[in-house]
Amino acid sequence: MLTIDLINQARERIASRIHRTPVFTSRLLNEAAGKQVFFKCENLQRAGAFKIRGATNKINSLTDDEKRRGIVAFSSGNHAQAVALAGREACVRVLVAMPDDAPKAKVAATRDYGAEIIFYDRTKEDREKFALDLAERERLVMVPPYDDELILAGQATCGMEFLEEVPDLDCVLTPCSGGGLFAGVATGAKHLKPGIRCFPVEPDTADDTRQSFLKGERVSIPPPPTIADGLRVQVPGRLTFPIIQKLAEDVLTVTDDEIIQTIRFILFRMKLLVEPSGAAAAAAVLFHKLPDDLKHVGVVLSGGNVDSEVLARVIAES
Amino acid sequence: MLTIDLINQARERIASRIHRTPVFTSRLLNEAAGKQVFFKCENLQRAGAFKIRGATNKINSLTDDEKRRGIVAFSSGNHAQAVALAGREACVRVLVAMPDDAPKAKVAATRDYGAEIIFYDRTKEDREKFALDLAERERLVMVPPYDDELILAGQATCGMEFLEEVPDLDCVLTPCSGGGLFAGVATGAKHLKPGIRCFPVEPDTADDTRQSFLKGERVSIPPPPTIADGLRVQVPGRLTFPIIQKLAEDVLTVTDDEIIQTIRFILFRMKLLVEPSGAAAAAAVLFHKLPDDLKHVGVVLSGGNVDSEVLARVIAES
Repeated sequence: MLTIDLINQARERIASRIHRTPVFTSRLLNEAAGKQVFFKCENLQRAGAFKIRGATNKINSLTDDEKRRGIVAFSSGNHAQAVALAGREACVRVLVAMPDDAPKAKVAATRDYGAEIIFYDRTKEDREKFALDLAERERLVMVPPYDDELILAGQATCGMEFLEEVPDLDCVLTPCSGGGLFAGVATGAKHLKPGIRCFPVEPDTADDTRQSFLKGERVSIPPPPTIADGLRVQVPGRLTFPIIQKLAEDVLTVTDDEIIQTIRFILFRMKLLVEPSGAAAAAAVLFHKLPDDLKHVGVVLSGGNVDSEVLARVIAES
Repeated sequence: MLTIDLINQARERIASRIHRTPVFTSRLLNEAAGKQVFFKCENLQRAGAFKIRGATNKINSLTDDEKRRGIVAFSSGNHAQAVALAGREACVRVLVAMPDDAPKAKVAATRDYGAEIIFYDRTKEDREKFALDLAERERLVMVPPYDDELILAGQATCGMEFLEEVPDLDCVLTPCSGGGLFAGVATGAKHLKPGIRCFPVEPDTADDTRQSFLKGERVSIPPPPTIADGLRVQVPGRLTFPIIQKLAEDVLTVTDDEIIQTIRFILFRMKLLVEPSGAAAAAAVLFHKLPDDLKHVGVVLSGGNVDSEVLARVIAES
C-alpha cells in the first residue's frame, strides 16, 4: 500500500538528488483559462521529467546484492532517462529496453546517461514480456515505470511539494499514462489537504483510464495514435487503477490539437518548453474542461523532453 | 550620473511591478562551458524581457502633467512592449514608433498591451528623428530605450538582484545593443562587488560597441545583418558609452551560428525559450570566449520574445 510513511521515507531518500521544482504562474494564461493556475514545473526536473523521483527512490532502496546485479527498465522515454541517471549515480549497471521507434532525443539522452539500450519491435513483441525475459536471463532487477509502491512514493513527493508551496489549491491535475504520477500526486496532495479534488488527464485517443474509470474495471485499448508519446500506455496499472478509482473525481480528455496549442502558449507566452505528454493537464485547463466552481488550479507540467522534429511540427501548426 | 541613490530609488519604485526573476543553473551547460554558469532569467520577466525595469522606473517618475500628456517610444520590440505595459499600468497614453519590418510577435504583443503603433520605413527614415517629431507634434514625453538615467537605474536593479542571489560571481555578461542593460547591470554589480569583471557581448556583425571600445570613441556602423533583432543598434549610446568604457574589461562577440546553437541548447536541455538577442551572452560562455581564469560566471538571459518563424528556423538549423 502507498502509505504516508513510504512517501515520507521517499522524501528523505531523494531530497538531495532531485530538484524541488519551481511553481510558475502566468497572468495571460489565467485570463485565457478564467482561473488562477499554478504550474509545478517538472519539465525543469533533473533528466527533464518527474520520473527521476520514483526511479531514485526505487534504486536507492535496493539491497547491496540487487545493486551488484544491476537493473533493467522498459520505457519509450522519460522513465528510461530517469532510471539511467539514477542508476549511474548509484553506480549500478542499467539496461533499458526501448521500442525501436522511440523519440531520438530520448534514446540519445538515455545512452548519454550511461545505460545500455536494447531495442525491440513495438508491433511484434510485448514490451513487458521482453523486459522480464531479459531480466531473468541477465539476473537483473526490474524497475517498473509505475506498478511499484516505491515508484509511486517517489512521484507522490511532487504532490506534497506542490501543496506545501500553494496550500490553497482547490484541485490538482496531472497527465495520466500508467497512472503513477496521478496516483502519487493525488495521494500526496490529499494527505496534506483531504478536500482537494484530483483529475487525471489523457489524450482522447488514448483514454484507457477514462474507459476503465467509467466501467469500474481495467480496460485495454489498441495502440493509441497521439502526439503525446509518453501517454500511449494501453491499460491502467494494477496498483495505480484502484488508487485512481478512489481519488479521481473524473478523468478528463484533450485532443492532440488542444495539446499542440497549449505547448505553443506555454512556449511563446511563458517561455517554457513542455513535451506533448507534459502539456496534457495544462490543455485541460486552457480548454475549459474543469467544473466552473474550481478557481485555484494546480497543474503538473510533467516533462520537457521533446525531439526537435516534433517541436518543429508543433510550431508549424499555427 | 547613474548614482547608487538613483538605483536604490528605482528598486523601491518598481519592486511591486516586476518579477524578481529566478537564477537557473544546468549541469550539462556547466560541463559544455567548463565553468559554473548562473543564468539570470529575464526571459521570464514581465513582458518577456528586462526592459520593463527601466520603463517602469521612468514612467512612474513622470510628473502628473507629463502623465496627462502621454508618452512615446521608438523600438523594434522589447522596449516597445515594456513601455506599453508600464504605460497601461500607470494609466498613460502610449504611442510606439516601430519599423515596418519589426517581428510580428512583438508588434502584436505591443498592441495587446494597449499601445497605439505608428510604423516607419527603417531604410528611409531616421527612427530617432521620426519619434522626436512625433513627440513634438503630439506633445508627448519621450521614453528613450537606453540614453536616460532613470532607464539605466531600472536596468541596474537586475545586476543588484543577481549579485544578491549569487554573491560569489567573478564576472557578469550581458547582451549589448545600445548598452543600457550592460551599463545598468555592471554599475549595480560593481556597487555590490567592486572586483567583479564585466563583459558586454555583441553579434560579430553588429560590433559597434567593440569598435568604439577599441577606438576610444563612439563608432557608427551600417545597419548590421544578424538574427539578433534586438542588437541591431548602430552606435553605442551617449550616456552608456562612457560607462561601458569605464566598467567593461573587454567587449566579446559571437556569430549568428553560435547564437542559434545556444538557443537550441537552452531550449532542449534547460527547457527555456530565449530570443536570439537574449542568448548572445550565453553564447559567449558556451563557445569559450571568456578568459580561462573566470570560473563563476553570471549570464543575463535578457529576453524570450521570439516569432514562431524565427524559432522554426533556429530549430531547423541543427
